Parts: sequence; structure tokens; C-alpha cells
Amino acid sequence: MSSALRVFSGATPASRLLPYKRPTTSRFKNPIAQYRPFSISWRQAMLSTELSEAEVSALRANKDRLARDLHHSCQWGYGIRWGDGPTDTGMQRLSLSEEDKKVRDWFIETTKSLKCNVTVDEMGNIFAVRPGRRKDVPPTFIGSHLDTQPTGGRYDGILGVLSGIEALKVIDEMGLETEGGVGVVNWTNEEGARFPISMVSSGVWAESIPLEKAHNLKEVPTVASLPTAASAPETMRSALEKINYVGSVPCSYKHSPMAAHFELHIEQGPHLVSAGQRVGVVTAVQAYRWYRLNINGRDSHTGTTAFEHRADALYAFARMMVCAREVAASHGGLASVGIIEAKPGSVNTVPGLVSFSLDVRGPKTETVSAIEAQLKKEFDAIAADEGKGIGKPCRVEWILDFDSPAVNFHKDCIDCVQSSADAVVADAGPDPKSLVRTIMSGAGHDSVYTSKRVPTSMIFVPCKDGLSHHPEEFSSAEDCATGASVILQAVIRYDRKRFTA
Amino acid sequence: MSSALRVFSGATPASRLLPYKRPTTSRFKNPIAQYRPFSISWRQAMLSTELSEAEVSALRANKDRLARDLHHSCQWGYGIRWGDGPTDTGMQRLSLSEEDKKVRDWFIETTKSLKCNVTVDEMGNIFAVRPGRRKDVPPTFIGSHLDTQPTGGRYDGILGVLSGIEALKVIDEMGLETEGGVGVVNWTNEEGARFPISMVSSGVWAESIPLEKAHNLKEVPTVASLPTAASAPETMRSALEKINYVGSVPCSYKHSPMAAHFELHIEQGPHLVSAGQRVGVVTAVQAYRWYRLNINGRDSHTGTTAFEHRADALYAFARMMVCAREVAASHGGLASVGIIEAKPGSVNTVPGLVSFSLDVRGPKTETVSAIEAQLKKEFDAIAADEGKGIGKPCRVEWILDFDSPAVNFHKDCIDCVQSSADAVVADAGPDPKSLVRTIMSGAGHDSVYTSKRVPTSMIFVPCKDGLSHHPEEFSSAEDCATGASVILQAVIRYDRKRFTA
Repeated sequence: MSSALRVFSGATPASRLLPYKRPTTSRFKNPIAQYRPFSISWRQAMLSTELSEAEVSALRANKDRLARDLHHSCQWGYGIRWGDGPTDTGMQRLSLSEEDKKVRDWFIETTKSLKCNVTVDEMGNIFAVRPGRRKDVPPTFIGSHLDTQPTGGRYDGILGVLSGIEALKVIDEMGLETEGGVGVVNWTNEEGARFPISMVSSGVWAESIPLEKAHNLKEVPTVASLPTAASAPETMRSALEKINYVGSVPCSYKHSPMAAHFELHIEQGPHLVSAGQRVGVVTAVQAYRWYRLNINGRDSHTGTTAFEHRADALYAFARMMVCAREVAASHGGLASVGIIEAKPGSVNTVPGLVSFSLDVRGPKTETVSAIEAQLKKEFDAIAADEGKGIGKPCRVEWILDFDSPAVNFHKDCIDCVQSSADAVVADAGPDPKSLVRTIMSGAGHDSVYTSKRVPTSMIFVPCKDGLSHHPEEFSSAEDCATGASVILQAVIRYDRKRFTA
Repeated sequence: MSSALRVFSGATPASRLLPYKRPTTSRFKNPIAQYRPFSISWRQAMLSTELSEAEVSALRANKDRLARDLHHSCQWGYGIRWGDGPTDTGMQRLSLSEEDKKVRDWFIETTKSLKCNVTVDEMGNIFAVRPGRRKDVPPTFIGSHLDTQPTGGRYDGILGVLSGIEALKVIDEMGLETEGGVGVVNWTNEEGARFPISMVSSGVWAESIPLEKAHNLKEVPTVASLPTAASAPETMRSALEKINYVGSVPCSYKHSPMAAHFELHIEQGPHLVSAGQRVGVVTAVQAYRWYRLNINGRDSHTGTTAFEHRADALYAFARMMVCAREVAASHGGLASVGIIEAKPGSVNTVPGLVSFSLDVRGPKTETVSAIEAQLKKEFDAIAADEGKGIGKPCRVEWILDFDSPAVNFHKDCIDCVQSSADAVVADAGPDPKSLVRTIMSGAGHDSVYTSKRVPTSMIFVPCKDGLSHHPEEFSSAEDCATGASVILQAVIRYDRKRFTA
């Protein structure tokens, strides 16, 4: 029994967990005779568990088709133009926007045409499953997200979902039959850009975040592209309803079970690209926490209030932000502010109230805790200093919005990715092994939540300048295809691992 | 000829400028017989120029009536509650809002009932003039503004206009006739809180700001109380039209001429209140400039972008704000940030674009220039430092929105205020002279612009903790009445100065 199945022991009838016995007869006789590496047509359906190791290693995504599909899907919500080419724009496809609805509709139509059964859960997560030969086991999934940052690019999340579609296309045109099903999932609001919890819907699926909390999340007012945000913010629930994506399936790993979850992503960092490496085998995700902080000072007149008579909440913020970088760096971590609001927001009034987001990360959960502890002390001291001249110092308040401890991915999945990556780059240059490395993810991904319930791992491919969350985010068609080939093989290898043990 | 009239030599027919000859007969015989100091009723109309110095010095505002009227006018747009009393709220009466329309309507109705002719100009400035005996000379004005900051109080501006109404009431009930008219003006959008140029409408009146520029000003999106601001910002012109306050009179000192402009204001600083002084004779206004600054960096992922790979526009801002206070303090000036916006505004994206307001002040115009020059160097250095690791440092851009050189008020007006202040506090304590001081204004006021065209000066009264632009801004009824008595006398003294030289 594979560990993948063991994970479901709490939720799956015991009958499903019996060791699978291979049928004594098979209608797939010697299918390999028709198989040609890199070919897109096999004459006759063949079974994943029947393939040789060499045949699995020869599986490849179709580079041009993947690029075509990826940019096709970016017609909905394209963003800031940065070059002259037809695809030289960023993306602005906020979760549950009209553009997101259109790409979702396309995703469903496309996967249905690839013989998938499609279900939508209460968080709008879309599960497209191409059934395997066995109906009583959960599918192996490829997943990521189609939503983007307000000034995002064409690869973050999108490549992950599109590589899943490409895998389905290769499997379909090969007539390959898998033992368990192969699924592709589009997770809702991974970015947390519109509704301010990232990976919220995989979080609900993992039963780590209550459904009601997620449904009640209000959109962030700073997301300027959604005119409703400032005056009448939507909740996730109302936004789901508006685009008709509240599904009937309860959002839970119990109702949409998976054998495993694989995710392909651009690195969003400089390591692969600067070392000329092709694939990152992601073994872990760094810890991070998101906070909202409020600084309460006192409004006063900019022209008549001496510095020593001020409790300037924005000045206190400025000192805090400078301090946060120093402290985080000293611990080998990161601290970042992405959202800031100062009130009342008038040129000649010293702001009495500042709210801001703080994102703290570190390779270990303890690193983040240590940074938090030190920042709490330092921020209190800064606040106490600003306004002491009038006996009304600033006060600072911390609210923890999100806590993602460090994650270690599953050995079985990592092994599948490692073997696949080695196979895909095997012919590239004199030292192909050097083109693959293990790597830790700096960013959170839906795989963080799936890893809580099912074996999970990720694949990174290089992106230009290590840049993401930016319109110019870029990964070459070749790098995208390399990643898609790796995930395709990894899914097949995992299927084989489950049923040929 | 008074200097007041000389000021108009460019715009006024020469005939008006001839020295005034007193009529040989007067219907006002011995009016003083009926005058009783502190009385509110004189039996017979009397002429300002006929009063004795003692009679002028005895003129007083009605403390209770002033307080009643002031708080009555604050029913439109009352803001944040800070105490239990019926008037323990701040004000939130943004210029040209529905609340502003209501208080304007009340202002017109009230001044008309006091025998004023009321005109409205193209900027919505309202001029209420109680005619004097002479029809061919411009009136002496009391002016200020009825708009407030988003989190403002009940005294900034409001006291100035209400003291004008109180002066009209005293003059009316005394049956006092002035030689020139006595006017009260409500200037539009003095605060600059909704439409981001302060004193914009006195600026147009002074022909220092083009009408079109003012009309095209867009409301500030951070003013949260106006839901239109973010999605469909009003222009000043459209906002004036919406409340039906685009007047037919061209906005210019040529079309709404003044002999002089007096303004009563709370100090908005701690000097009077901390010294226990009652009246500030304002002789000057410090210089200030308002800038908008844009910092261009690069959006990137908060979780995957090392500090040395960032061009974090918000981090650069934080360093700039810390630096600005140091530099301004070293020059004996002030530097403040009231508005900030960071884009794209997402928790896990390092902001690539920050815009902020910068308000720099100093006692002399040269002080402000020196601060600006040093900050430009320092900010460039900070910007160059952030992003140098990726060869794409931040860039900072300055836009000067507003430049108000240091102003010295007019000696004739200052003299009238000084004499009036001395007279009003004459009976207060053993050393009444010590209760009056000359003072420089830290804040800009409409008087800055009127001073460019007509003799002008101001009067300050103490406010609690020196606090303003805050809901708890407070000046006692007694202090308000003291100021109103001073401005009443100052206007009468100025009228006498003009016509009894």
C-alpha cells in the first residue's frame, strides 16, 4: 500500500485500501510496439503501469502547444504592457473577477473535451479528473491557480494549471490509461491579493481554514482595478455567487480526495536562473506569517505642530519599516510591507492612524518566531518614542492574519520529481545532473495546504531575473515545457509507484 | 488716502481714489449720548467715524450668542465624538459636500437677515456685505472658511467666519453705520483636504491660481468619507455644480474688491496656551511648499526576493521620511507626510510604486529652499541605494504642487489688531499687556492670498494643547469671544483709519 493511500485512511472506506491485485488478463497487449518517443500518437490505449522506465523517461510535453494554450488563457485579464510582442503584457486577473470567470469557463470546457469529469466545490475550486482504470481510488492531481496579482505576470500559477492541461493532452493523445485517475485542480484566490488570505481555498479544502471565515473575507480596498472594493467591498461568497462559481461539493479533502498533489511553478527567485540550472526539485517551503499592524498616534497640523509635539503614526511606521529589514536580515529572514494606509490622508494633517501589512519569512518556523519577538520589542520602543513629548505616545497593535509553518514535502513525491527531472534533462549537455537541484520555496503555494493531507511536492523552473509579481515576469517556452514534462512524468511515476509496489 | 485704497490703484477707477471729503452736515448728532458700553441697543444709528477711542475700545462680541451660533453651524457635518457633551464632536465637513452646502445656505440666509447683499463667485466664494454709508469704496472684510479636514474640529476656519457674523450682529443691533461696508467672506476649500490645493479659492481671487486649474482639481481618493472619490472623483467644478454654488461673479479681487481682510483663527500651536496669553497679533506667515513625490522601484515577490535583489519603493520611502525629519529639524523647519499610496497594494508583493505628499515649512522662504535642496540630494542617494543590487535602482521624482513664500502682513492692519487686542484685554489682570503677543503663523490661511492684493492681518486665540486638524480641537467660548471682540474692533478701527486720516 502506498503512503498516498494511507493518508486517506481516516476518510476512505477500508475496502479501498486493500492492496490492489492486478487483473490476470489485459486487453492492452504489447502496446509499446506502437510507441515512438516524442510521438504524439499511439495507436492503441496502453496502461501506465505497463510502461518501461525508458518509456516513462521519454514522455514529453509539447512545448509549442503549451505556450499557445498558456498565452491563449492570458487573453482574459491581461495587464500592463512592457514590450512590443503580442504576449509582452503582464496579467491582472484578480480572483473571482469577470476575467477569472472567463478563464474558469475555458478551463472547464477544455478539460471536459479531454474526457474529464469536472466538479466545483463551495470555494469555487475546480477539479477536473480524467478517470483511471480503477474507480475506487483517488486521483493523482496536478494543481495551481489561475488568479494573479494586480500587477502580476503570465506564469505565476498559470503555468501550473496549464502544465496540468498539457499533461492531460499528452496522456489523451497517447491513449495512455492510468491506474488511478489524473486530475487537474484550479485553486481559488491563491494569491490572496483580492481576498486577503493567500491559498485560502486549498486551506479550506485541507480543513485548516473554516469555510465561513473564507466566505466572509472582504476584498482589499487597495486593489484599484475593482471599483467596488472601496465603496461596497464584495465578500468571497458574494463574489463567488456573482460569477456563479459556488459549487455544490463541500470544500474538503474528504469530498474531493487526492492521492497526491504535484505543482509546477516558476521559481520566483534568482537561484536557478543565475546558476543556469533547469529544474528545482522543491523539498520544502519556508515559514511565514502575515500580520496587520495598526499604529495609533494623534492627528495634528503639519504647519503648527513641532516635531516634539507630534505623535506622527506615519513617522513611527517609517522607523518601523527601516528597523524591520535590519532585524529580519540579522536572523536570515525577510520582512516586507505590501499594503499601507495612513489616515486621515490630508497633505497638511499629520496622520494619527496608520495600518499596514507585514510579511515575515524564514527558513524555519523558529526563525519567524524570533523575528516577530524582536520586532514586537523594537516597534513598541519606536511607538513609545513618538509622542512622548506630549505624554501621548503612539501605540502599536499586531493582528496575526496568517501563519504558515515551514513545510517539508513528501519523500515519495520528491523522489518522483527527482527521477523525472533527471530524465527530462538527461540529454542536455555534458553534466545533466548539474542542471537539477533541490531547492526550498520562499513563497507559499497551494501545495503547502495539500501537503497537510496528501503527499505533495513541487517543481520549479527558472524565470527571468528571478522576478515575479511583476508584469515582466517571464519564463521561456522551453523552460515551461521542461517543467511540464517533469510534472507529466512525475504523475505517471507516482501512479506506477502506487500500483506496482 | 489710506494704503488700503492705494492697493486698488491698478483695478479701481481713479475717481474712487480721491481723498474722501467728509460731508459738512450729518444727520447723526451727538449719537454718543445714547451709547452705553456693553449695551446691545443704541437708540439711533451712529457713524463709526463719530465714535470716541473709548467707545471703540468698549465694543464687544456677545460670547454666548457667538458660541450658540458656532455650534449651531456645526450641526452640518459633525464628525468623531470625543466626549459626552452635546458639542463634544469633531467636524467632517469636506468642501462642497452636502453638509458644506447646508452650512453655506445657512450662512447666506443669516447674513441676508443682517441686511447684507450676498454674491457668490465662480469658485463658490460667498461675499456678504453690509453696505456702508459710502457706496463707491470697497468694504472691509472679515473672512475665513467653513470647510474642515476629514477629522477636523469645530474651530479651524469656522470661528473666523462666525466671528464675522457676530461682528455683523453687534453692528446691526447697535445701529452702527460704517463709512465703508463691512463684509464677511466664506472662502471655498481652504483646507485643501478634498481638492488638493489649500486656500485655492482665495488664490484664484488673488489671481495667483488660474480659474481653470482650480476648477479641474480632482478630489483626493484618500478622503474616505466621499464614496465617489475612489471610483469617479469629482472635479471642483463638478462638485460646485452639484451643490449649485457656481456663482456668476468672476472670481477676482477686481470683481469682489476689498479694502482690507482680517481673519480670526485658533493658533493651532502651543505658544498662547502654554504662556497663558489671550491674543496673538499675527504679523507674518511662515513659508511652505507642498510636493508630490513618486518613487519608482520594482514590484517583486515578498517571499522569494532577497533584500539585495529588491527595489522596494516603500522601503525607500521609509528611509526618506526618517531623513526628512532630521534634515528639516537641522534647518529649524518642518517636513511632514500626510498622504501615502503604495502600489500594487498586495500583502506579498514588494511595492514598485509609492506616491506621497511632502509639506515643508520654515520661518523664511530661504529655509524652505535650503531644506528642499538638501532633501533632493538625500532622497536621490536613498533611491540609488535601493535596487542597486539588481542594477535597477529606485528613482524619485518631485512635483511642486504649491509654493507659499513667507508673508509679512500689512502694518495698518497689524496696528488695528494690536490696538484692539490691547483694548479688549485692558481690564484683565494686573499686566494686561503681557496677555497679547505678536506671533508668526505656522499654517497657511486665506489671508496669505488676500495679503497679495489688500492690506491683511490675522488674530490668533489659544486652543487646547495647541491641537488642531483633530476632532478634539477646542477653544473656550471666552477665548472665541475675545478674538471676535478684537476683530470687531479692528474692522471699525480700520474703517475709521481709512476715512478720518
